[in-house]
Amino acid sequence: MPGQMTGPKKYLFTPGPVAVPPEVLLEMARPVIHHRTSEFGAVIDRARQGLKPLFGTKGEVVLLSASGTGAMEAAVVNLLAPGEHAVFVNGGKFGERWGKILAAHGMVGHEIKVEWGQPVRPEQVEQALSGAPEARAVFLQASETSTCTLHPVEELRAITERSGTLLVVDGVTSVGVFEQRMDDWGVDVLLTGSQKALMVPPGLAAISLSERAWERARGLKTPRYYFDLARELKAQRDEHSMAYTAPVSLVLGLAKALELIHGEGLERVFARHALTADATRAAATALGLKLLSQRPAPGVTGLLLPAGVDGGKVVRYMRDELNVGVQGGQDQMKGRLVRIGHMGYVTPLDALVAISALEQALAAMGVSFAPGAGVAAVQQRIAGQAGAPRRAVSGQGR
Amino acid sequence: MPGQMTGPKKYLFTPGPVAVPPEVLLEMARPVIHHRTSEFGAVIDRARQGLKPLFGTKGEVVLLSASGTGAMEAAVVNLLAPGEHAVFVNGGKFGERWGKILAAHGMVGHEIKVEWGQPVRPEQVEQALSGAPEARAVFLQASETSTCTLHPVEELRAITERSGTLLVVDGVTSVGVFEQRMDDWGVDVLLTGSQKALMVPPGLAAISLSERAWERARGLKTPRYYFDLARELKAQRDEHSMAYTAPVSLVLGLAKALELIHGEGLERVFARHALTADATRAAATALGLKLLSQRPAPGVTGLLLPAGVDGGKVVRYMRDELNVGVQGGQDQMKGRLVRIGHMGYVTPLDALVAISALEQALAAMGVSFAPGAGVAAVQQRIAGQAGAPRRAVSGQGR
Repeated sequence: MPGQMTGPKKYLFTPGPVAVPPEVLLEMARPVIHHRTSEFGAVIDRARQGLKPLFGTKGEVVLLSASGTGAMEAAVVNLLAPGEHAVFVNGGKFGERWGKILAAHGMVGHEIKVEWGQPVRPEQVEQALSGAPEARAVFLQASETSTCTLHPVEELRAITERSGTLLVVDGVTSVGVFEQRMDDWGVDVLLTGSQKALMVPPGLAAISLSERAWERARGLKTPRYYFDLARELKAQRDEHSMAYTAPVSLVLGLAKALELIHGEGLERVFARHALTADATRAAATALGLKLLSQRPAPGVTGLLLPAGVDGGKVVRYMRDELNVGVQGGQDQMKGRLVRIGHMGYVTPLDALVAISALEQALAAMGVSFAPGAGVAAVQQRIAGQAGAPRRAVSGQGR
Repeated sequence: MPGQMTGPKKYLFTPGPVAVPPEVLLEMARPVIHHRTSEFGAVIDRARQGLKPLFGTKGEVVLLSASGTGAMEAAVVNLLAPGEHAVFVNGGKFGERWGKILAAHGMVGHEIKVEWGQPVRPEQVEQALSGAPEARAVFLQASETSTCTLHPVEELRAITERSGTLLVVDGVTSVGVFEQRMDDWGVDVLLTGSQKALMVPPGLAAISLSERAWERARGLKTPRYYFDLARELKAQRDEHSMAYTAPVSLVLGLAKALELIHGEGLERVFARHALTADATRAAATALGLKLLSQRPAPGVTGLLLPAGVDGGKVVRYMRDELNVGVQGGQDQMKGRLVRIGHMGYVTPLDALVAISALEQALAAMGVSFAPGAGVAAVQQRIAGQAGAPRRAVSGQGR
C-alpha cells in the first residue's frame, strides 16, 4: 500500500532546511555573477533592506557566508572578551549551544537551566542576573527549535536595561516566522539562517546589532577574523559587497525569496504560519498526542509519541514510505518526538498532508486512535480560515 | 559599435567566482533535501571522496560552510595556539591575509616579504625558519591569486621536515587547476574554495590535513567552535553529514561538478587550463604586454597595462560594453593590471574571446598595437593542440 503512494513528489516539513520555492531555485540557477560588481551590489542591497522588516529594525542587517551557528559564534566573539561573564538560557539543544560557544572562547557562562518544553520565565532571567552582576549579556532563543518552544523575548527589555546587559537573540526559527520587533523589544543582537522562513537553501546567515552592540563590537579585541562584524558591515554598507567572497547564488536566492515574502505581505505570511501550526496542534489533540511545549512556537510543532512508540521509526516511515520529511527529537527527546515544521514555503493545506502521513505511520506502528481524526481536525480548523486575510483585504465575500 | 555586440550572453573570466556549468546549476536547483538523511549522506560522501585526487591525498577532505577565507582561519586556529610562532609568505594580497589572521588570533607571524609577481625562493623559507626556530608552521599560497604567481610548494618538504614545521598551503587557485600532490609533497594542510576550479558558486570550502596536522589539531585548545575541524571530521566521516546545518545545495553542486571533472579526466582538465593560460600569455607577448608574474600560474594570468592606461577602465569597458568579465589588480596593482581567469568551465577557445575583448578595450583607450595580433597568437597556440590529449588517448589521427 504505502509503496503505491511514493512517486517523485517529496514533501519537506522539517524545521529546516525547508522547501525552497521554484522561483528561488531558478533565481539561484542563473549564471554566476561576480561579487564585486554593481549588479551584485544592487542584489545584496535589496536583500539586506528586505530583511529589516523581518527583524523589526531600522538598523543594518549584515549577511554572513556561514550557517546560523556561525552567526551565533559571531555574536559571542563580537560582544564579549575572554573571561567576561554572560547569562544564557538553556532550554534545549540550541540554548545549550550558547553555553558551548561561550565556553569555547573562554567566557564565563551562567546557565539558566529550563526544562525542555518550558519557556524561560522573566523572573529567572532577573534572578540569574542578580546572581551574576558582572554579566555583560543575556543569550537566548526566540524560538527553541529542539523543543518547539517560544521564550518571552518581548518581556525582557526592562530586565536587561536595568542590569545594563546586552540582549542577544537567536532568531533562526523566528525571523520571518512571526513578528520580531527588535528595536521595540530592546534586542541588541538578532540573527537567523537562510534555510528556515527565508526559504533559501542553507549556507547564509544574517545578523543585526543595536547601536550599543555595534559600539561594543567596535571596541572589542576578542580574536576573530572571518566573523569580524564591523568589517562585514563596512564592506556591505560602503562597498555593496562582502568582506570576502560572497555566496552570490544564495544572496540572489535571498533577494528573490524576500520579493515573494513582501509580495505576499508579512502579516499574511505570519498568519499562514500561525494557522498551519494551530491546525497541527488541533490534530494532535484529536489524535490524543500531547505537545512537548508549554508555549508552542508557530514555526515548528513537537508532538510527543505514546510510550513504546519509536519516534525514529515514525520519522523513517513517513519519509521512506510516504515521502513526507519531518524530524525526530534531538538528544534527550530522541525517539520520543516528531517535529513538523511550518515555516516558509508551506500552507495550512500542507498540514493535511503532514497529519495524514503521521496517522498512517502511527497506524503502521500499531498505535490505536480514531482513524482520520487528525485530518478532520485540520480540516475543521482551516476551513474558511485560509482565505480569511485575503477576503478581509479585498472586501469580497464568497 | 560595442553596443551592438552586447546581448544576453555574458562571459565570466574572473579568477573566481568562475562560470558554473548548467549541469551544476540545475543540480543545485533540485528540491532541497534534509542534511541528516541517507540521501544527503551519499552525496557528501561522494563529494569528499571525489576531492581526494584533486588534493593529491589519501587522507580525509572536510567541507566547511564558509568561503576560502574561513578555511584559512580554520587552518590557523586548529594548528597554532596564541603566542606561538609561524612563518608566512607575503607575496600578494592572500599571503598578506595569512599574516592578518595570525595577528588577529595573537600568534607571532614572521613575514617573508616577496615582491609582487615573484615566487618565494626555498632558501628564503629556510632563512626565515633559521631566524625563527620556534616557528611551528609555514603558511603560503600554492598560487597567489593577486599576482597570478606560483610558489614552489613542491620544493619545501625537505626544509619543513628538517625544521619540524607544518606546511600549510592555500590552494584556492590551485586545487583542481593543476596537479596537487599533498601527500607526496609533505603538505600538512591544503584548502580551497568552491568557486574556482571546482565550478560551484561560492560559499563552500574544503580542507585536508595530514596525520600530524590532525594530531596537532586534536590536542590544541585554541578558541574555536564553528571551525573546529576535528568535530567536522567526526560529523562528516562518522555521521555522513556536517556538524551544523550543511549547505545542501552547494554540496549537491560540488558532487555534480566533480562528476564532470572526473568524467573529463583530471589530466585533461589540467592540460586544458595550462593551454588556455599558455595561449593567453602568447597573446600578451604579441600585444606587447608584460606579465606581472615571474612564475605564472595556470589558473589566472595577470597582464600589466602600458603606463597611462587605467586598468579599472579597461575592466569596465570589457564588462559593460562587451559582457566579458575579467578582474583588475588589487591593492598596489589597482589600476595597473588585468587578470584573466582560466579555471573550471573555460576552454582554450575562450582565450580568443577574452583576448579579443581585451584588444577592443585597449583600442578604445587609445593604446597602439597591431590589431588582431593577440587573437592570432591565441589561434596559433591552440590550433591542433586543443584536441591533442584526446587523440593521444584514442590513438586516432584526423
